[in-house]
Amino acid sequence: MIDLNADLGEGFGVWKLGDDAALLSVVTSANVACGFHAGDPVTIRATCVAAVARGVAIGAQVSYRDLAGFGRRDMDVPPDELRAEILYQVAAVDGIARAVGGRVTYVKPHGALYNRAVHDERQAEALLAAVAEYPAPAPLPVLTLPNSVILDIAPRYEVPTVTEFFADRTYTPSGTLTSRREPGSVLHDPAEVAARAVRMATSGTVVTTDGGELAMRARSICVHGDTPGAVALAQGVRSALTDAGIEIGPFA
Amino acid sequence: MIDLNADLGEGFGVWKLGDDAALLSVVTSANVACGFHAGDPVTIRATCVAAVARGVAIGAQVSYRDLAGFGRRDMDVPPDELRAEILYQVAAVDGIARAVGGRVTYVKPHGALYNRAVHDERQAEALLAAVAEYPAPAPLPVLTLPNSVILDIAPRYEVPTVTEFFADRTYTPSGTLTSRREPGSVLHDPAEVAARAVRMATSGTVVTTDGGELAMRARSICVHGDTPGAVALAQGVRSALTDAGIEIGPFA
Amino acid sequence: MIDLNADLGEGFGVWKLGDDAALLSVVTSANVACGFHAGDPVTIRATCVAAVARGVAIGAQVSYRDLAGFGRRDMDVPPDELRAEILYQVAAVDGIARAVGGRVTYVKPHGALYNRAVHDERQAEALLAAVAEYPAPAPLPVLTLPNSVILDIAPRYEVPTVTEFFADRTYTPSGTLTSRREPGSVLHDPAEVAARAVRMATSGTVVTTDGGELAMRARSICVHGDTPGAVALAQGVRSALTDAGIEIGPFA
Amino acid sequence: MIDLNADLGEGFGVWKLGDDAALLSVVTSANVACGFHAGDPVTIRATCVAAVARGVAIGAQVSYRDLAGFGRRDMDVPPDELRAEILYQVAAVDGIARAVGGRVTYVKPHGALYNRAVHDERQAEALLAAVAEYPAPAPLPVLTLPNSVILDIAPRYEVPTVTEFFADRTYTPSGTLTSRREPGSVLHDPAEVAARAVRMATSGTVVTTDGGELAMRARSICVHGDTPGAVALAQGVRSALTDAGIEIGPFA
Repeated sequence: MIDLNADLGEGFGVWKLGDDAALLSVVTSANVACGFHAGDPVTIRATCVAAVARGVAIGAQVSYRDLAGFGRRDMDVPPDELRAEILYQVAAVDGIARAVGGRVTYVKPHGALYNRAVHDERQAEALLAAVAEYPAPAPLPVLTLPNSVILDIAPRYEVPTVTEFFADRTYTPSGTLTSRREPGSVLHDPAEVAARAVRMATSGTVVTTDGGELAMRARSICVHGDTPGAVALAQGVRSALTDAGIEIGPFA
Repeated sequence: MIDLNADLGEGFGVWKLGDDAALLSVVTSANVACGFHAGDPVTIRATCVAAVARGVAIGAQVSYRDLAGFGRRDMDVPPDELRAEILYQVAAVDGIARAVGGRVTYVKPHGALYNRAVHDERQAEALLAAVAEYPAPAPLPVLTLPNSVILDIAPRYEVPTVTEFFADRTYTPSGTLTSRREPGSVLHDPAEVAARAVRMATSGTVVTTDGGELAMRARSICVHGDTPGAVALAQGVRSALTDAGIEIGPFA
Repeated sequence: MIDLNADLGEGFGVWKLGDDAALLSVVTSANVACGFHAGDPVTIRATCVAAVARGVAIGAQVSYRDLAGFGRRDMDVPPDELRAEILYQVAAVDGIARAVGGRVTYVKPHGALYNRAVHDERQAEALLAAVAEYPAPAPLPVLTLPNSVILDIAPRYEVPTVTEFFADRTYTPSGTLTSRREPGSVLHDPAEVAARAVRMATSGTVVTTDGGELAMRARSICVHGDTPGAVALAQGVRSALTDAGIEIGPFA
Repeated sequence: MIDLNADLGEGFGVWKLGDDAALLSVVTSANVACGFHAGDPVTIRATCVAAVARGVAIGAQVSYRDLAGFGRRDMDVPPDELRAEILYQVAAVDGIARAVGGRVTYVKPHGALYNRAVHDERQAEALLAAVAEYPAPAPLPVLTLPNSVILDIAPRYEVPTVTEFFADRTYTPSGTLTSRREPGSVLHDPAEVAARAVRMATSGTVVTTDGGELAMRARSICVHGDTPGAVALAQGVRSALTDAGIEIGPFA
């Protein structure tokens, strides 16, 4: 069974971003912005209500405190500050989710924090300490990359982990994502993106930039919804997986 | 039994405000700033840890979103926005409190929201709707003034209420607080303040600005800690109540 | 000669709002968001660059500090705080405008501040004190409604004023704007909106909600660009004015 | 002639930091917080008024946008964003300074930006581009360390530079500041600190951590005021310099 996750609730106040309604009919897990890079309380509550109504799992998408930069600016936040900031965000969104009949069932770092926590042990530990500390009915899994240091550290914090695959991104032979700054790092052809998703889900492999094949076993596939084309891409991924006989459902 | 409450955790980042350590040895209820008028996550967590260690009850002190004005600027926030903003704040602080072994047991509005929710039915309803919606083990009581519209509306939301008395403030014959802008509205003499606290706690009355006596039955007394003198005042109130044989303990 | 003004640069970080490029080909004055309700520095700079390139006048659209509410929440900001906040905003945008070859030539309050400064003398004075204090080559005019208290107070501060007309809004017999909450308060028919603009510009009158006629002499007409329909409306107003032989140009 | 500079106006809203009044009687240059790490508009204006009254030069102390972290968190801000953010801050404070009879005569980066711009060429260029672009009567000098890449790049932007010395910090043999995390990196003995200031000012040298002597020719000495001891230290530095016959005055 494969999960499809996407970022939702990324507006702030008067500003909107992405087609949440369309995405909610595609994904099985919604990464809900918690207010630090996006996500005002009205938007968070509405996103949780919609996710509950659609049976979509709710994740807390925690971020650096950076509204102006949408959480995309790498920040050297001291671990004790980062830990408390992540705890605050998880608590806020989980409390709202529970108020409307759902609950947060996983945590996904956003943007620059996502990228940094993959290799920065101090920040990875801060993230895991916060998640471990949060009193959910069961420890919340953290969504990350297959080659993340989070996977190594998480057992020490007794925090479960789930890995994800980006169907519309290319991978280097060493298994890292190709930098967005390089041409061809992001794929736009719906058929190609869908085929990569099916390949990963069925054979557990991905074709890398040098044409080789790499093992890639992820429980979740990340799709995007911030452009009309992206929604169509996401829908294509879902259809192709279903057509290939793969069951779609939340990991959490 | 009388409760003593005070505002705590009112710093933000590098900035500190008030003598929290001293206050925690005086009060039985800590109104913890939730991040909207003060209170960064590190401070919230540390304040909750300290309150739990001292056996002090934790309240969520919710506010308008106004760091620059410390929540003291009256704001005409639409009810749906205010409701979500309050829910967000209660959830954040309760989640942090639970993470460190405590939990939020009451809600107190801060500053301009406190003053407005006393008479503005729309904002009082937004506040009560948020509190009613938050999934605490039992509905969280709201701390307010004896003549507040919150008292009238709360039963409809099945939200409990608790009233509080300001020992260092003068009251008009109609039972409202004298405006801070009027001379003599704030009392500074420790003996006088302590005597007013004891009078309220034992006889259920307060002497008003015209020399008359008014019924004043409050379960909690609010003290302050933002100046050295204020802490001494608070300690004097506690000593005088104890000397008068009144038990001090949290209402929640 | 009639000026056409519109709000521009109302995005923040990753979020966009309105079709600035289209509006810049319609208006002669751009109300540039200064960062308090919208407008990050990159957007402010880009908006000023574009305005200079098109020969469009740059105004500082000052606001309450309220990103989450887009400056639409009425706030009781103490005059000394409001004055300093407005001075800060005007200075920031004027400095950026001058850096790219333009300069701020007028000030327009935004949202809730716009509405409140029309009748609240304390806030009107704070606004005027800030504008009077700012060291522009010549005092910056303030854009407001024909029945605003700003018009009465401005001479005392030696601040010029300019009045504006809303072609797509209805007016009560007393000359105030019909509340947006009332049905029919906003007009959507391009022909009707354009006709009202021409009527105001040529005969100095507006037809009020009771069918009567009211004197309405404004130097500027405010148009909007936050929806595709709004841009078409704005273009229709400009075309109709031009067709009626009215010259279009900035007041400042 | 030697300049003494210190950070001022580092409060925000209700929160205060440092003894600005005491510092203004010691220093000849005030690094005024611009609102991104500290410094609300009321504080900025009051600090400028006080500086003008004392004849103290006003500098714009620009920072990453990070109120919660007081600008001390290193941030990887894209150059175009950083440039616009710095331009915004310089413009805001200069406009306020000019409104009260002064003007910004130099720029000093704060905290993490200060440290990063010393070696990160992209951020140093963004800083210099912003300063070069700002239309001051003459290009504003940037205050930095003697071994900063800013010194190398500045000529290309035609931006003047001024170097500063930290009398209460130790230096490594290579001329960099010893990390604050190392014991003994900050000096607290008034006599020692004053002696180091005089040595630098008279002989152009500093004794490094290995006991050696290093050339150190700085036009300004940075002092601090965030603790009572720090103010006394600053006063000691000034007295010692004066006693040594060194003239104290702003570089700008």
